[in-house]
Amino acid sequence: MAERLILHEDAVSGNCYKIRLTAALLTIPLERRGYDILAGETRTPAFLATVNPNGRIPVLQIGDRFLPESNAACHWLASESALIPSDRFDRADMLRWMFWEQYNHEPNIATLRFWRSIVGEARLTEVQRALVPGKEAAGADALALMERHLAGQDWFVGEGASLADICLFAYTHVAGEGGFAMAAYPAIGAWLDRVRHLPGFVALDAR
Amino acid sequence: MAERLILHEDAVSGNCYKIRLTAALLTIPLERRGYDILAGETRTPAFLATVNPNGRIPVLQIGDRFLPESNAACHWLASESALIPSDRFDRADMLRWMFWEQYNHEPNIATLRFWRSIVGEARLTEVQRALVPGKEAAGADALALMERHLAGQDWFVGEGASLADICLFAYTHVAGEGGFAMAAYPAIGAWLDRVRHLPGFVALDAR
Repeated sequence: MAERLILHEDAVSGNCYKIRLTAALLTIPLERRGYDILAGETRTPAFLATVNPNGRIPVLQIGDRFLPESNAACHWLASESALIPSDRFDRADMLRWMFWEQYNHEPNIATLRFWRSIVGEARLTEVQRALVPGKEAAGADALALMERHLAGQDWFVGEGASLADICLFAYTHVAGEGGFAMAAYPAIGAWLDRVRHLPGFVALDAR
Repeated sequence: MAERLILHEDAVSGNCYKIRLTAALLTIPLERRGYDILAGETRTPAFLATVNPNGRIPVLQIGDRFLPESNAACHWLASESALIPSDRFDRADMLRWMFWEQYNHEPNIATLRFWRSIVGEARLTEVQRALVPGKEAAGADALALMERHLAGQDWFVGEGASLADICLFAYTHVAGEGGFAMAAYPAIGAWLDRVRHLPGFVALDAR
């Protein structure tokens, strides 16, 4: 792989961690460039003009091209690797879980973790406070669906780890920081341990 | 293609329409099975047990297997077709727009259309009403980002139509039903017309 890879990130973000974990499992070297979301560093004119017009991290820079969206960046890194199933149905089913993660899991579980462990409850707006009960319920529904799925199989798709597992691991393993009582989900707990034992695994706070 | 394909859907849903449009452009026959979301038909025990434990449509049934998530179903249908770019970066960039659609576009633009044109403003809950201004702003931001992108190129990725265009067309072409003033986005308007002229195009309300 000739092109230089730079991850534009905030180290506490689970979405950024997905990309670091995918790269580590595939032994692909990544440079890291940090931004502080709370300080608005991803909304500066320079960032919007060059890195991501959407004002968000992570962005994977591949040579002089920029790829936003965590799950798309993981997909680029894992192209032609065993982290993407070769079977047509399994490949689409992996994407199914990745889209589900962004729509049903991340906006509830990651957002509550961000509000409670990073922003702080005292700083939430009125509208954010009004959303908490709905996000608690939807997050618990998402975890319950994962628990039922994992009661019957070791990995989300097929017989081995895929990007679906990596992308779901990122915010599930810190769901407790959002207030979710993870002891209620033993099959999720066993799956989290399986991911932690993948060769090359790195933790969220690894430098 | 030997397996029978059944789309479990609600005909007014843009997410379901994406799948019909992809199949039509690829001349793949689909059977359609309708459910009324407002009547709770996707939350019955039978639906949850067999079609989708997440209680949502669309679901693409492929033989006896079920594939939820609209963008994943489109990806299955388009496997090996020109609607998925062959270049590695472009393929990931297509997914980038599809993830962006589910995270930044659909929850704002599709939700406001659903609330205003299908549920009706008078029936919204207090929490939903509180969310309207934020969704109006975020939806306008999403449209502005699309407008800037399309001012420089005919299609979202590369030189031709891909799943990114199909998946973004579905709710953009009815954004006016959510209250967005689409005349403000001429590049989007020209792109919508390019999609409408793709060979095999079908409209949302085609039977």
